[in-house]
Amino acid sequence: MKSDLDRLMLERKLDAIIVAGGEEFNTARYYLSNGAQITHGTIFKLPGKPALLVCSRIELEEAEKSGLAVKTDVELGYYDRYKDAEGDSLKATALHWADVMGSLGLSGGRVGLYGAWQINKTIALYRVLQSQLPAYEFVAEEKTTLIEEAMLTKDADEIARIRSVAERTNAVMELAWERISSLRPDGDFLLDESGRRATIGDIKDLVRRELMARGLEDTNMIFAQGRDAGFPHSRGEADAPLRLGQAIVFDLFPRELGGGYHHDMTRTWCIGHAPAALRRDYDTVMEAFDIALETFGLHKPTHLMQEAVLDHFEGLGHATTRSEPATMEGYLHSLGHGVGIDIHEGPSISHLRRNDIFQIGNILTIEPGLYYPERGYGLRVEDMFVVDESGQLTSLSPFRKDLVIPLKYADGKVK
Amino acid sequence: MKSDLDRLMLERKLDAIIVAGGEEFNTARYYLSNGAQITHGTIFKLPGKPALLVCSRIELEEAEKSGLAVKTDVELGYYDRYKDAEGDSLKATALHWADVMGSLGLSGGRVGLYGAWQINKTIALYRVLQSQLPAYEFVAEEKTTLIEEAMLTKDADEIARIRSVAERTNAVMELAWERISSLRPDGDFLLDESGRRATIGDIKDLVRRELMARGLEDTNMIFAQGRDAGFPHSRGEADAPLRLGQAIVFDLFPRELGGGYHHDMTRTWCIGHAPAALRRDYDTVMEAFDIALETFGLHKPTHLMQEAVLDHFEGLGHATTRSEPATMEGYLHSLGHGVGIDIHEGPSISHLRRNDIFQIGNILTIEPGLYYPERGYGLRVEDMFVVDESGQLTSLSPFRKDLVIPLKYADGKVK
Repeated sequence: MKSDLDRLMLERKLDAIIVAGGEEFNTARYYLSNGAQITHGTIFKLPGKPALLVCSRIELEEAEKSGLAVKTDVELGYYDRYKDAEGDSLKATALHWADVMGSLGLSGGRVGLYGAWQINKTIALYRVLQSQLPAYEFVAEEKTTLIEEAMLTKDADEIARIRSVAERTNAVMELAWERISSLRPDGDFLLDESGRRATIGDIKDLVRRELMARGLEDTNMIFAQGRDAGFPHSRGEADAPLRLGQAIVFDLFPRELGGGYHHDMTRTWCIGHAPAALRRDYDTVMEAFDIALETFGLHKPTHLMQEAVLDHFEGLGHATTRSEPATMEGYLHSLGHGVGIDIHEGPSISHLRRNDIFQIGNILTIEPGLYYPERGYGLRVEDMFVVDESGQLTSLSPFRKDLVIPLKYADGKVK
Repeated sequence: MKSDLDRLMLERKLDAIIVAGGEEFNTARYYLSNGAQITHGTIFKLPGKPALLVCSRIELEEAEKSGLAVKTDVELGYYDRYKDAEGDSLKATALHWADVMGSLGLSGGRVGLYGAWQINKTIALYRVLQSQLPAYEFVAEEKTTLIEEAMLTKDADEIARIRSVAERTNAVMELAWERISSLRPDGDFLLDESGRRATIGDIKDLVRRELMARGLEDTNMIFAQGRDAGFPHSRGEADAPLRLGQAIVFDLFPRELGGGYHHDMTRTWCIGHAPAALRRDYDTVMEAFDIALETFGLHKPTHLMQEAVLDHFEGLGHATTRSEPATMEGYLHSLGHGVGIDIHEGPSISHLRRNDIFQIGNILTIEPGLYYPERGYGLRVEDMFVVDESGQLTSLSPFRKDLVIPLKYADGKVK
């Protein structure tokens, strides 16, 4: 968690870390600035010392909400350096960073670089840093960075925020279920109150509105039906009418409005009834889900959980990315991932990640699925879990896992 | 515009461009993939040839909506390279990119890198590319990239989308105005129908809902009142009650839902009445706005427009970032910027940017302002414009620029 940063910096022998970037949503900056609503700003931190946020004067008011020490680039002499560099903004940035680190008592050493930025600008700045500041070694971590390692385990405040997002997301999923169940069947389709065919877009609109009413924002939910559901990340066609008896993969992963913590959960629904083959595969997915939970153990490697699920699916004749790496059918993805400010964080539950383990404070998904686009369906069930203080895996997605949404209307009347 | 990309590649002597990145919103990828809803995927393009989008199999369905040639990383042998690289994913990526470029007929040359990604990963990959693929020179453009240069001028489809976003944004601003004007004054405050004091958060909620109902999403609007408005990028306090006679800077810059084109406009409002000093400065800002429009000329350098506005403000005794680079009061920012998939694109209207010119197809803002936090106010007025086919500057923000929102209630009754 965030309080581990000083220790992690020492372990990695870093004399400072810098979190930089442009207007892109910047997870590392959001995390270290405690969610300050800034679009620029660079954070400097030495081990054992408080972080310094250097911001533009036009964002000073928001920057100060970070709780960090804050200075403007103007007062730290950025524009003098811009003149020194004759308008070369990358060179000015390099000289300015040296000034800032100097003001913190550093004149050289190993500096880790983090944040998110344009690829071309990052490379160009990296070259300039190397040529302008030879007393420093700039470190680009290839594997799990120290910030990602801190984010692997959430502190009590973060878990409280995530629990709240989870409760609101479950409530919205209930509203979507209720809405669908109240529609009037008409052949293979469903009609709304005005007699119009209800569409995927109608449900997505409802979900977005209800999320917003609860202080959450959609981040491009998946609501994919029939063959589309057979592609794990197909978003679904807004104009397509809802159809009875088709698999709908509904993967909802909103976050706090304006950026913040996520909840991630998926249900597969069939409206009215489900074909037998689909129902059989759904049972197989639910068995995989239960096997995953049984495999859980605190401090156990996460890949063992994925491997148990792979064994299960392969044992029943389904292709997996382990048994047939190029397959386009069967079980096509990893079993789960951490969730936080990013929708995909560590730990990963994958047979390709050997070093991840379950730890107290993890927030992670478990989401087995089967995908058969040629048969016209895909299936996935996902809960998000917290590994709580007692080392238990506790679901934050209690919403029911029924496959079939029963319709309240039948034979022209409400049941 | 996008059709210029081949020419721009030749001018920059690039044998290929690669647009890469992770889950960050990636403007270059959105642009080149025509808005495909993918969170991964790498685009390879050689001059004069169609672009190839290499995606994960789980995003194939969405990737194909790009209209580009699409292949999965699996079918192009990524996982074989992952084995060759013994699980070193950066090395595997480098080898895989060479394979892809080879399949396009390239075995070396100058390759421009674009997109957005984590800073540490970009640097680490760049090092690996240099060591693994010595036949290639990887180019990181420092100034305006060829993609940014293409984006400077919008094509007819883009302008039509932007016009639509603009119309919807203006309509929502009207609703906010109407809502405020319908509130009942109570001393310095305003009461809603239930007798509760109306807050900034109430207006923000209304605006977010109404944007969403029109297929738009807020990207963290500014609705800042009183002293907060004196900091150009203060977002405003949701819990703060609306107050009569205070400057409210309302800067609204939504985009198409799920990512896409923006509209950007700002109005400054005083509810009920405006103090004389504030009104005088507002007139000065409006004069600056008119001076900016008069200074416009097709193919003229943009910095001349900023300089005319600087002359105006300085002539009236206001500090600017030209006259007093460290000032925290007065006119604190550049006059405007391009708008598109990013909220801040080129051209820039700044005295520090000497090479930008006005061109047909530009979409850009003009937004003079004055900021006096110690006097308890800030003021900004912003329209977004298109430089149309005839070379005229046409506002896309026709919403009225009245400073005072008159209240419908007065002396306890509706006027």
